[in-house]
Amino acid sequence: MIAETVDPETFPIANPGIAPETQRRIAIICSKGSLDMAYPGLILANAARMSGIEALLFFTFWGLDVLRKDRIDNLHVATVGNPSMPIPTLLGGLPGMESFATARMKQEIEALDIPGVRELVEILHDSGAEIYACRMAMDMFKLTEDDLVPQVDGVLSAMDFFDKTAGAQILFI
Amino acid sequence: MIAETVDPETFPIANPGIAPETQRRIAIICSKGSLDMAYPGLILANAARMSGIEALLFFTFWGLDVLRKDRIDNLHVATVGNPSMPIPTLLGGLPGMESFATARMKQEIEALDIPGVRELVEILHDSGAEIYACRMAMDMFKLTEDDLVPQVDGVLSAMDFFDKTAGAQILFI
Amino acid sequence: MIAETVDPETFPIANPGIAPETQRRIAIICSKGSLDMAYPGLILANAARMSGIEALLFFTFWGLDVLRKDRIDNLHVATVGNPSMPIPTLLGGLPGMESFATARMKQEIEALDIPGVRELVEILHDSGAEIYACRMAMDMFKLTEDDLVPQVDGVLSAMDFFDKTAGAQILFI
Repeated sequence: MIAETVDPETFPIANPGIAPETQRRIAIICSKGSLDMAYPGLILANAARMSGIEALLFFTFWGLDVLRKDRIDNLHVATVGNPSMPIPTLLGGLPGMESFATARMKQEIEALDIPGVRELVEILHDSGAEIYACRMAMDMFKLTEDDLVPQVDGVLSAMDFFDKTAGAQILFI
Repeated sequence: MIAETVDPETFPIANPGIAPETQRRIAIICSKGSLDMAYPGLILANAARMSGIEALLFFTFWGLDVLRKDRIDNLHVATVGNPSMPIPTLLGGLPGMESFATARMKQEIEALDIPGVRELVEILHDSGAEIYACRMAMDMFKLTEDDLVPQVDGVLSAMDFFDKTAGAQILFI
Repeated sequence: MIAETVDPETFPIANPGIAPETQRRIAIICSKGSLDMAYPGLILANAARMSGIEALLFFTFWGLDVLRKDRIDNLHVATVGNPSMPIPTLLGGLPGMESFATARMKQEIEALDIPGVRELVEILHDSGAEIYACRMAMDMFKLTEDDLVPQVDGVLSAMDFFDKTAGAQILFI
């Protein structure tokens, strides 16, 4: 179901028939750059759009990796620091283990017909979801908009983020 | 206080005297399977029920460990990747350290009369909290409902989750 | 912009002209004690106050480190368990790497004129943000209010937290 693309004509982001106060909105702050914590924000935003809910994604701190042209196709799973990962901590730190676990998770995701991260960002953009990068994190990592994928709608400060999210259900991932 | 069981007769989940728009609701997405990140969701949901607030828990990704029959009694604390943990990173990766830290946290939790994870899930279920597993995460980990504790009310897609949480305060843990 | 202090006279927390139902409120549950996950909550709360939004911070579990007199100036960045960190996992566990990464992040933060954690907590307090510690986490770590910085407004149970956050946008970090 998630792999179906969202039709922006079916779920337009601006619905003139619904007053802003009654249009449900989701805002997701994405602060992590690991593969397993990048997916939840993207999948929740996609499900929201498929349900006709407005979705805004704000990428900050490590989450900027998800928007970086040079990293979006190479997000990794953390193999240590997560007791749910079926790899002993000592082995998890060995070279190659992170790549192995990442390749395995990508296979499992593909087997479920879930798009890759880059494709999911494109689907979200096409569905009318708003995608923003955090100004402060951009400055901290010395990035410019040229470093980011073209689906990014702009760079916002935390105050701008609050301006855009009155009345929204806000998640921090 | 947390250790007191919630009386479902005092806090029925369906309160005919209160219109849906005015009944406060909390929805918690539980995405982590470590002991220290499993407790916050369960404890917040329990506090919500004790305050007469409707509570819905949606377990996804690593969070499914909290509902798995074979793991619910064996959640572990992460001893690496957390600078607040009083164990140097290099030692944290040694065999046995994770078990040691887990045993110590369990003792501290028990000393405060906080129930174990399995008991807390039962208390939540009895109090009228709704407990769901994420369809996509179930598929990814090749799990069926038989793998989960009987307190699970069902398996939901992310779209189903949004259908059930209009107007709720949503947390992602 | 973030480094500008918030003027409590411009943004009083009690605004008699606005009814409680219409005054926007943010509540942030801070559960992490690492430097990189302490900042997002503090910076979001500061941005909220600068936008005239009421802000409440509730520190629990590892998040208590941010309020502890003996730790607030020594929060660390996790160098393992985060694939976005540009340090191989095996090296990340070596003695000194965490201190090195922490020093580097502090430099980058200072270069952006962002205050340190202690100063940010003071700014938040002066701006009218409410700062609370979690009762259960205090008990678990055997802490008293004397162990915490003076900007803490009190110690709350999870039920107290819910009492204070009806209608708020709640984030869990």
